[in-house]
Amino acid sequence: MNITLETAQAHLDALAKPKGSLGRLEILAARLAVIQQSLKPQTRPRRIVLFAGDHGVAESGVTAWPSAVTGAMIGLICAGRASSCALASAQGADLRLVDMGSLSSTPNPPVFFRDARIAPGTADLSCGAAMTVDQFEQAWSVGEEEARRAHAEDFRILIAGEMGIGNTTAAACLTMLLAGTDASTATGRGAGADDAILARKCAIVEAATNSARSLDGSTAVAAIAGFEIAAMAGYFAQAAQQGSTILLDGYVTTAAALVAEHFRPGTSAQMIAAHLSAEPGHRAALNALALEPLLQWDMRLGEGTGALTALPLLDSAAALFADVALLADIAP
Amino acid sequence: MNITLETAQAHLDALAKPKGSLGRLEILAARLAVIQQSLKPQTRPRRIVLFAGDHGVAESGVTAWPSAVTGAMIGLICAGRASSCALASAQGADLRLVDMGSLSSTPNPPVFFRDARIAPGTADLSCGAAMTVDQFEQAWSVGEEEARRAHAEDFRILIAGEMGIGNTTAAACLTMLLAGTDASTATGRGAGADDAILARKCAIVEAATNSARSLDGSTAVAAIAGFEIAAMAGYFAQAAQQGSTILLDGYVTTAAALVAEHFRPGTSAQMIAAHLSAEPGHRAALNALALEPLLQWDMRLGEGTGALTALPLLDSAAALFADVALLADIAP
Repeated sequence: MNITLETAQAHLDALAKPKGSLGRLEILAARLAVIQQSLKPQTRPRRIVLFAGDHGVAESGVTAWPSAVTGAMIGLICAGRASSCALASAQGADLRLVDMGSLSSTPNPPVFFRDARIAPGTADLSCGAAMTVDQFEQAWSVGEEEARRAHAEDFRILIAGEMGIGNTTAAACLTMLLAGTDASTATGRGAGADDAILARKCAIVEAATNSARSLDGSTAVAAIAGFEIAAMAGYFAQAAQQGSTILLDGYVTTAAALVAEHFRPGTSAQMIAAHLSAEPGHRAALNALALEPLLQWDMRLGEGTGALTALPLLDSAAALFADVALLADIAP
Repeated sequence: MNITLETAQAHLDALAKPKGSLGRLEILAARLAVIQQSLKPQTRPRRIVLFAGDHGVAESGVTAWPSAVTGAMIGLICAGRASSCALASAQGADLRLVDMGSLSSTPNPPVFFRDARIAPGTADLSCGAAMTVDQFEQAWSVGEEEARRAHAEDFRILIAGEMGIGNTTAAACLTMLLAGTDASTATGRGAGADDAILARKCAIVEAATNSARSLDGSTAVAAIAGFEIAAMAGYFAQAAQQGSTILLDGYVTTAAALVAEHFRPGTSAQMIAAHLSAEPGHRAALNALALEPLLQWDMRLGEGTGALTALPLLDSAAALFADVALLADIAP
């Protein structure tokens, strides 16, 4: 049986409550049912894979933080003391961390860490291609592997999070290229850019994206993406293909979702958007994927924190299918 | 040490992340810290008490559902098959059900049920006072007892939910009286009123509230309230006094919060508003309590379902204090 939004909503309408009285919780429940093709959708176990990488463009003054912060945050995640770790623990999500290409190696990593470094950071996208097509494909494959692994380990909800100083610049380029926005809409303050940084970042986004437009297919995307973004795109594409439920985080992960949808149309049908980030281009990127965010909480940290915050809302939605009586059961 | 919003925010600003980058999750975390006067706020264990009662005004054509539904829903909650049961189970909240005055008794109730019936429904508020001051005080006391009991059993988060056909009419009267709205703003469709029912309901709300204005103190409130609403008011007032954290549900519970704040000013300082309901008067009622809702999801079921949906967001907020490193710990 094919479960459509209508089938799922009809089931929710038959529950012992006024029709539609749970508002957006019902809309979420129906989408979960369609994504999983089941009227008993499952939200456990769930996994978040954090993909990290450095960006050559960080040297061109587009960010308030130095690239060294990427490595410091990798260390903090390894120690279980980052915001994403706290939220993953609070919401019962298994966490993995994959280094796709940070500047430095990670000594004595924990078991949930994977070293998949392609290079010590991408090249500076303001001076040429950020990566080669071959590097892009390598990164994509690592993401695919992570999705396959999560599926083999029976995870039902797959989240991707990212860490990489400079990666909102790459996300802005991809949003401009793939969601059809202009540079000023696509470019935001990231982790805290001031006006001067923002102006420089916007000019770089515009120039790099316009250059990329003259290239085709993966060459264009590789020129302006990042290792962690390419990996997340592969992760999403594979997750969708295998029927996993994807809970999408903020601006950078959504840029990866645009890449996945570009190369594998239909990927976004397996997605639920967790939140609308404070980055101005996020709304346009979500619109391009036909996704409506669950929360609008002005979050802009990345690391999958928005998705982890919204995650238990899926538990409540799924519980409606599992535990609520039908109106027909109690009617006199 | 007195924890203010500034103290709490300063602590959040010192965590290893860009300042303010978790947006409203930080605002929620800071409020939790102030309410609990602790930089390690606790969100478990948590309890929801559902208060049920019937309303004489249901006989005057203000609702799409007959009063018999109150008893049917009590039975469904006793069987663990209502929406509130599903969500309480999904979010790990202990559930109790207190019958404050439904039309019929409940045979073979489960251990979490309490029979505290004051009368078989209130009198019809469109023809005179819904209850006497003595009944109002009795109901308030039952709510106080439930809050004391929850505190003695070490519950940290206290939720109230309600079930009672006709109770959005009482809630509208109380919102008009205590939040200073007009009848048309205060009156909504409840569990599904059509235009004719809505018009009748609005006229009754206006007339009953204007009559109540000529009475004073508890006489006025008793004239337009319900047994379950009076009980929730006592529950909230006592919960605040004992320092519990209150997670507020939708329109009818917020009307009870207005009553609690009216008689015990300061009660709302212990509250977090879970959601903005689809009922048009809810925004004005929350504004009168200076509360900003976490979710705007068009929910209008009652039974504490909005509060239970928002509950795990508090877990994420609290986790920031517990598990995230300080920036000073990782700075070079």
